[in-house]
Amino acid sequence: MFEQHRETLEKALAAIAERGHWSAFPESPSPRVYGEGAAERGREAFEALLGRRFPLDQPGAGAWIGAERSPYGMDLGVTYPEPAVEELVAAARAAMPAWRDAGPRARALTCVEIVQRINRRSFELADAVRHTTGQAFVMAFQAGGPHAQDRALEAVAYGYAAMTASADAARWEKPAKGEPLVMDKRFTVVPRGVALVVGCNTFPTWNAYPGLFASLVTGNPVIVKPHPRAVLPLAITVQVARETLAEAGFDPSLVSLAAEEGQGLATALATHPAVRVVDFTGSTEYGEWLEHHARQALVHTEKAGVNTVVIDSTDSWRGMLGNLAFSLSLYSGQMCTAPQNVLVPAGGIETDEGHKSFDEVASGLAAAVGRLLGDDARAVELTGALVNPGVLARVEGAPSLGEVVLESRAVKHPEFPDAVIRTPVIVRVDQEKSDIYGREHFGPISFLIPTGSTQESLDVLRRTITARGALTASVYSTSAGVLDEAERAALDAGVNLSCNLTGGVYVNQSAAFSDYHGTGANPAATASLTDPGYVAGRFHVVQSRRPA
Amino acid sequence: MFEQHRETLEKALAAIAERGHWSAFPESPSPRVYGEGAAERGREAFEALLGRRFPLDQPGAGAWIGAERSPYGMDLGVTYPEPAVEELVAAARAAMPAWRDAGPRARALTCVEIVQRINRRSFELADAVRHTTGQAFVMAFQAGGPHAQDRALEAVAYGYAAMTASADAARWEKPAKGEPLVMDKRFTVVPRGVALVVGCNTFPTWNAYPGLFASLVTGNPVIVKPHPRAVLPLAITVQVARETLAEAGFDPSLVSLAAEEGQGLATALATHPAVRVVDFTGSTEYGEWLEHHARQALVHTEKAGVNTVVIDSTDSWRGMLGNLAFSLSLYSGQMCTAPQNVLVPAGGIETDEGHKSFDEVASGLAAAVGRLLGDDARAVELTGALVNPGVLARVEGAPSLGEVVLESRAVKHPEFPDAVIRTPVIVRVDQEKSDIYGREHFGPISFLIPTGSTQESLDVLRRTITARGALTASVYSTSAGVLDEAERAALDAGVNLSCNLTGGVYVNQSAAFSDYHGTGANPAATASLTDPGYVAGRFHVVQSRRPA
Repeated sequence: MFEQHRETLEKALAAIAERGHWSAFPESPSPRVYGEGAAERGREAFEALLGRRFPLDQPGAGAWIGAERSPYGMDLGVTYPEPAVEELVAAARAAMPAWRDAGPRARALTCVEIVQRINRRSFELADAVRHTTGQAFVMAFQAGGPHAQDRALEAVAYGYAAMTASADAARWEKPAKGEPLVMDKRFTVVPRGVALVVGCNTFPTWNAYPGLFASLVTGNPVIVKPHPRAVLPLAITVQVARETLAEAGFDPSLVSLAAEEGQGLATALATHPAVRVVDFTGSTEYGEWLEHHARQALVHTEKAGVNTVVIDSTDSWRGMLGNLAFSLSLYSGQMCTAPQNVLVPAGGIETDEGHKSFDEVASGLAAAVGRLLGDDARAVELTGALVNPGVLARVEGAPSLGEVVLESRAVKHPEFPDAVIRTPVIVRVDQEKSDIYGREHFGPISFLIPTGSTQESLDVLRRTITARGALTASVYSTSAGVLDEAERAALDAGVNLSCNLTGGVYVNQSAAFSDYHGTGANPAATASLTDPGYVAGRFHVVQSRRPA
Repeated sequence: MFEQHRETLEKALAAIAERGHWSAFPESPSPRVYGEGAAERGREAFEALLGRRFPLDQPGAGAWIGAERSPYGMDLGVTYPEPAVEELVAAARAAMPAWRDAGPRARALTCVEIVQRINRRSFELADAVRHTTGQAFVMAFQAGGPHAQDRALEAVAYGYAAMTASADAARWEKPAKGEPLVMDKRFTVVPRGVALVVGCNTFPTWNAYPGLFASLVTGNPVIVKPHPRAVLPLAITVQVARETLAEAGFDPSLVSLAAEEGQGLATALATHPAVRVVDFTGSTEYGEWLEHHARQALVHTEKAGVNTVVIDSTDSWRGMLGNLAFSLSLYSGQMCTAPQNVLVPAGGIETDEGHKSFDEVASGLAAAVGRLLGDDARAVELTGALVNPGVLARVEGAPSLGEVVLESRAVKHPEFPDAVIRTPVIVRVDQEKSDIYGREHFGPISFLIPTGSTQESLDVLRRTITARGALTASVYSTSAGVLDEAERAALDAGVNLSCNLTGGVYVNQSAAFSDYHGTGANPAATASLTDPGYVAGRFHVVQSRRPA
């Protein structure tokens, strides 16, 4: 079954080894790619879900719950079966042996089929992601759809590669006096146990798919616990997975949804004795709680960090400012990869347009953001809306943190008057105020920090990221020596580095099959999407041997 | 440097993929293999170490400590530098960047050189292992020497394979409107941090080498903390590693010895903030303590379990009894892989010599052990000596646990009159006494347990191993259906299974490059020697990208 996906799996396996450019799912929402009317049909499918019980055939506690409200200003009105935790866990455990016995190949091909079917619902998912996260449509389509699907496939490939790196059977023949000793051995991949995926508010699919598919392909049933504000994209995902599994002859209980309105369901699930894997994306505070308290489980967390930009010099002043302005503005900085701390020598920098003082860098960056977001109708397609009131509160409080370089501006969405939209605020903060810039301020908030020198900037990078983590770092320099030093600092701090981004690649973007997202080597994340460490602990090998 | 080991590394890489029979280091101590006089030179080298300060050039606290006493009855009189923990850790950290920068290949080849040099000291190590563990000479040579060296090389191969599974550089070229986007990317393996290996009393090298080499090859400096009763084999190992590293131009502080006389040094080291990996072999109690308290580290433990034999039927009554008798007697059952619980239907079993009642199975097994160990001079070469007084106390207390099927017998060693040697005690225990057989009784103690049926035996196996873990299980049956059921039970319990061992392969033996030791899927161990999960968390990948 699903043998037609053999080639996709093989290409994905080649891609994770080579890590050049490859993608299985086109990122363009163009009708030329996804077909005429696809966007409209997706919109209709999304709208048909609103104000109803979400069609999901899993055992429930009886009640229907859900209180999602779009950051664009409307209640979704979708409700989901309130989960009966013990029933979900019991059903997941009961489903496990047959899924285990199907073996790595059948599981991988079934997972590819699930992802393919998810891809066919990309427009519906785009609207669901948009109206739970506040992302603009194109981003919701790309990051919530094809990019997330690529990350899913990547996790399937890593899991499959890890499970099949060694033979599943061998004849062992040892020379001995007289007859050789001959044994036949079988090596069977067994899952770790029930897996839990705890989704986040901002990237419900992109951040949940790697854990979901890494666990599933390695044989573990998965309970998906979405963020209470972003249930719908994962409900659709679970629906697709259950349908596919059932059609393939497996128990749909292998994937189930644990929706909540915010009662702390993650804690109950993550500490359940049968839950043996937890994947979490969200706050540092709760991530660390999970790491310390979900002791029976393998816990992978992606938390907060202090993403850092070191500006030393540039041969593309305008390219640099435009690139940085875009990175600060995209989805109003509500990305775990968006820059926060911009470190610039107090004495200024050399550029292709001559020496620029620190203040000129500051005003140049502010002006670049202003230009990029000058037109409201176009601005909202870049910034989207603020995902929740917490972000708004931080934006409004940011001016008190230092000297405002660029004020945040409220923008009216032409289509959604109730959407809360804010452009980035940039605040100058002194280098000694590491109590301020040394922690994450999630949202469109960044700090311009004057330092004594680029060497000092790199010291700040090393120190803050070692202490608090980061998912991205970037450096601008025309000096090969400085770039080398920055690479060393990034290795020491364990953070992925982008150098001299002045064109159409942005530090907050990470492409599946090529860019590692997170490293596991600093406090922002315990693992990388995706590397061998991300999949390895999810399964074990059990051996049987008998005389041949 | 060490390019001559390229072929060994490649063969090891092929072996871990194929998992058939392969060994890099000959297990026979014959002069035809290791050269005329090798054994004698090894003995001399060992004796030259006794009663002296062990020559190790690492920073110390000043005092020389050590109180090892051979289970064969003599004090070794070797002393070691008392470690200054902060200095060792600081030196290890300082050594890390250059080792990281050397890259996977240079590290792997250097590790192979270390193992090769260890191999050349196999006879000296055999005596050191013998006189710290009580193993008989041939076993000390094989398990402490070549078999341990094979496990070391296996860990190097797994580490190298994991680090090199993906490219270390790539060009990423994404089609775009106008010019394609082109980035050059580098992917660098970075170590997790300082690693700690906590050795055990019974197999100081075999159980320590996988963690030592898995950590070292992946870039982590390693502090080796031997069991206070079994320091010398690991001191020799550390000495070889430091010499090799220094000759290769690396800082010898990458491997250091933390000897103690039993003050709890493991606890201080394992909870040190800079210690990020811990490998432990030993008691369940302390292993669980480490899992819960060494929160800053990746912790791999190999603990105790209830190894189980299910006897259903056999077509080789004598072969079965002889094989089991050997497994119970080898190193007086002081192996984490030795059988403990032997489950037999109360109604007896069918064999090639007709029906045998439960009592006939019991008396047959007792007689087989008696025959095997009937001659004292030959017996001691199989049993070795008891490793410590705790084992002796358990043997002496065992008769109170049930009905004695075979009494333990004290044996005089012809060469070492003070050696404490005991043959196995076998005790019949009722099935309902799971409080007795449901936990480990380390040493030459086993239980014969009558069950209602083989199905009940498999239920006991599933239940006890799920609850308390096991490193081995075995089954005897002439029925394909029963063997299949046993395999399912073993998969469910997550334990490696041996079927119908009646010849020269024993359940307590696990061959590097083919047999997985432990699974990680039951409480006896968190990982397997060696599988991808054992090496994966020891390193991370850090990426750097820049426009091409």
